[in-house]
This record gives sequence, C-alpha cells and structure tokens, in this order.
Amino acid sequence: MRTLRLTDEVRDFSRAEKRNGRSVALVPTMGYLHDGHMSLVAAAKEAADVVIVSIFVNPTQFGAGEDLDKYPRDVERDLELCRSAGVDAVFLPETSTIYPENHATSVEVDETLTGVLCGRFRPGHFKGVATVVSILFNVCEPDVAVFGQKDAQQAVVIERMCRDLHFPVKIIVSPIIREKDGLALSSRNTYLTPAQRKQAPVLKSALDEAVMMYNQGERDVEKILTSVKKKLAASPLARPQYVELVSAKDLQPVKKVDSKALLALAVFFGSTRLIDNVILAPDSLE
Amino acid sequence: MRTLRLTDEVRDFSRAEKRNGRSVALVPTMGYLHDGHMSLVAAAKEAADVVIVSIFVNPTQFGAGEDLDKYPRDVERDLELCRSAGVDAVFLPETSTIYPENHATSVEVDETLTGVLCGRFRPGHFKGVATVVSILFNVCEPDVAVFGQKDAQQAVVIERMCRDLHFPVKIIVSPIIREKDGLALSSRNTYLTPAQRKQAPVLKSALDEAVMMYNQGERDVEKILTSVKKKLAASPLARPQYVELVSAKDLQPVKKVDSKALLALAVFFGSTRLIDNVILAPDSLE
Repeated sequence: MRTLRLTDEVRDFSRAEKRNGRSVALVPTMGYLHDGHMSLVAAAKEAADVVIVSIFVNPTQFGAGEDLDKYPRDVERDLELCRSAGVDAVFLPETSTIYPENHATSVEVDETLTGVLCGRFRPGHFKGVATVVSILFNVCEPDVAVFGQKDAQQAVVIERMCRDLHFPVKIIVSPIIREKDGLALSSRNTYLTPAQRKQAPVLKSALDEAVMMYNQGERDVEKILTSVKKKLAASPLARPQYVELVSAKDLQPVKKVDSKALLALAVFFGSTRLIDNVILAPDSLE
Repeated sequence: MRTLRLTDEVRDFSRAEKRNGRSVALVPTMGYLHDGHMSLVAAAKEAADVVIVSIFVNPTQFGAGEDLDKYPRDVERDLELCRSAGVDAVFLPETSTIYPENHATSVEVDETLTGVLCGRFRPGHFKGVATVVSILFNVCEPDVAVFGQKDAQQAVVIERMCRDLHFPVKIIVSPIIREKDGLALSSRNTYLTPAQRKQAPVLKSALDEAVMMYNQGERDVEKILTSVKKKLAASPLARPQYVELVSAKDLQPVKKVDSKALLALAVFFGSTRLIDNVILAPDSLE
C-alpha cells in the first residue's frame, strides 16, 4: 500500500493505474476509521479495480466552536486498517497542501439543499465539504467515489455538486453501519461518556418507531415526527437539535410521505452531536 | 474538424486524444470570434497537440440589464474560422446541457479578487465565469487552457481558481490583440456607432500615456491615474466606469508602482462597455 502526501504523487498514481486499464475509486474520509468507513472501502473495491482512501481532517467544514481541534486522530491505526482491507493507496495530505496560502476559492451548493437539516445549524459546513471534495476529485481523478448514507445530506449535496459541475465521477452511497445496539458508527462516538453511550441507541429506536408507523400505513409527517420526538424525549440525556422528514431527492419539507423521503435527526449528548437517518420509501426500507 | 454538442462527446474526444499520447488545449469563448480569439487558438496550438474551442454564451456571467440577449452570435462564421485555423474540435453545447434543471452549484473566488475592478460593477459575473470554466474543465479535461489578457481580471481569477481547486490544467494568458488604431479587439466593438468607434481608441492612448509616464520614472499611482483620466476626459463620448492601478498578482490597490502592476479601465460609449489594460512592470511592458 502506498502512502502519498503530495497532490502530484496521488494524481500520478491514479493516472498510472488508469493508463493500465484499471478503474479507480476514492473513499474520502477524515480518518479515525471504523467499520463504517471500512464498509465504504469494501463498496469501493466492488466498484473499481483500485481504491484510494483519503484521510484529511478538513478545517473548512468545521464551524466556529465545533470540534476541529479535538477531532480524534490515529493515523497509524488508520493505515493499518487500510492495509488489512487491501486499500491500494492512502492520500494523507497536509492542510497547506490542500489549501495553499491565500486560498480563495470555494464550491457551494444552493441553500435549498444546504440550508436545511444539518446545514441549518452548521453554516458553511457544506461549502467546506463541497470545496474539499472538488479538490479531492481534481487531485485523485477517481472514476468512482464512495460516501456514507450516514451523512445523508452530504450525499445529496455531493451528488448534486458532481452532476452540476460535470465531474466525471460516479457517486456511490453506501448503507449505514451500526453497533449491535443500533448506534450508527461515527468517529464522534468516542466522545460519549458511558452513560451517554448507553442512551445513544435512542436515535435508532426513534427512527425504528417511524419505520413501524410507516409500515403500518401512516403517511402523515406531523404524526410521524411527533412519535419520533416523543421517543427521543424518553432519554433524559438526549437533546434533539432537529428531527425532520423531507423529500429524499431535494431535501424539501413534505407533509405526506407519498414518495421517497428522508427522516433525519441530530441529537446532542452533552456537547457531542450525533446524527442518524432512515429512508422511508415503498420498496427500499433500510 | 469535429462539432460536438454533448458533454460525453467532447470528453470522449479529449480522452481518446490523450490516450493516443496527444496533449489537449481548450480555448473557452463566447463565440463571435475575432482575431483576438484566433490568437488564443494559435497559442493553444503552440502549447498542445490538439485544440478544442468551446463556444458558449454563458448566461450566468451576465448581470441583470447586461447584454445577454443581444450578445452577437454567428456560429457558421465561427465554425469556418475554427476550421481555417486548424482547430480539432468545437464544443457547442446547449445552455441546458451545461446547466441542467435545478442547477444549484457555483464556484466562487473571494471578493478580494472578484469585488474589485470589473467585479465591483458586475456582481456575480466572476462567479458565473468561475463556474462555467470549472464545468468546461471537467467536461473537456484539457491539459492546457488559454485565456486573453484583454480580460485581465478574469485571467487572475481563473488562475487562482485553478490553483485553489487543484485543476490539473495549465493556464496560459495570451496578449491583447488590437486594431491598427489601438482599439483592443472585442466582440462588443460591433455595438459601437461610427462616431463612438472613432473615439474608442482613447482607451489605448490613455494607457499609452501611463506607460510613457512609467517609462519616464513616474511611480506615483495618483499622478498616473490623474493623467489617464484626463486623457479619457478629452473624448466627449467616453464615459469612464473605472480606472484603477492595482497589484498584478492579487489585484489589491497600490500607492506606488514598485512591483508588477495592472492598470485597468472600463469605459462606456453609450451603452457599450469596453475594457482595456496594460501591465506596468520593470521588464515586461506590453
């Protein structure tokens, strides 16, 4: 496995593979890898001949007061996990490599997609995400890129950005991976105290409540949201930031679940913010 | 010469050429080609094996009240000029090909570069330019792209955007081409009445005045600008929008011309807006 730190190195690597007829997949991560990330790697290996994992804690997607400084890192362990998973190259750039001095350019997707859900509470976050993903696409030149459904809004934003800017990259969105008790895997789970960790699966059980109602024929968004919020309220340590049910396609609010919809929520435990989501749709329940 | 209308067609064309070991240059234009454009094509032919000219009147770089609707077009003549010049492919997309329904993504360079000079009077213009150039880069995948020094601020903005987003494209900026009387070539010159056309070379003579002062040792920006404005004022039909002398590197105002500087101006003749510029630098006077 190659460990590459410079943009020219990773571009040369990718181009050499493609010249030899091999397709290249990129899995962009912020490191501190867990089984969720490794499922993206597995999806990447399915989709392409060669897999590049990027590990870059992107400062521009963190807001003031967010956890950039304390974001967990363990590069040695990450590299070992990638090696074991058969990753071909890890791109591990310095911040100044991605954002050289006087960096002045950003990529932005309109508020209709980025001003709702998480974006409403994290102004600038998706601008940082769209910018760094554009940079990674230009540097790694992948044929395929894999993102997690865990960050549902991010997946929709990236898909739109990729289409709108005509990046020649196929986007794959890979399912959420969960702990046995239902908690969605996240590098931020490491922040949880034991008491918080014990209550954290309430995100999943609240979503399950909605799925049950949906399966029983309930289509009224207000009623579904009320039950989800009630479920969350039963966990004293859980402090919901938002619970929303929107169109899965364009993230706009809906009143009835009559086409593919996204139920997404963000919940604080102390200062730790967790997110989770489920798709409600006639044929594709998670 | 190929005439290509779909993104897949031009990307396939470019990739096939590159697979065969040939480098590809892109010359992005809005059509109504003149000798200025053809000098960009000549520079492109010098720099790469294969030349693609894109012809696309990009709506997102026109502001409200600007000349999008009346922008001059003559595709047949453009194609003939490209054919004669040995262009390999013309990319001639529909607006809906570049901007599909619900297009929601833009590329933006910070106000420090885009809020000055032309950008001060054309809000959103450089956002439209940066967005369409990003799209054309992703579609045509050129090794080299050629822009005109005539649009001096555009060249600086594109160079910065290209660096910041790590596009694997070398930017070449090609000198201004002028009529015999000094008027810089522009598709918009066609708007001028005979009386306006007669006075339009005042832009160049005003710039020449500055060059003369500079060559005689004048370094005080205020004094140079005063002379340039006086020269323009002598033409009764010329209505200057701005005359500015800035750092050529980052477009920030300077008081003394002690490093490479850009003297740029925009002047209205009736409703027709003309721009011109000159670089003031120790060794590289135009």
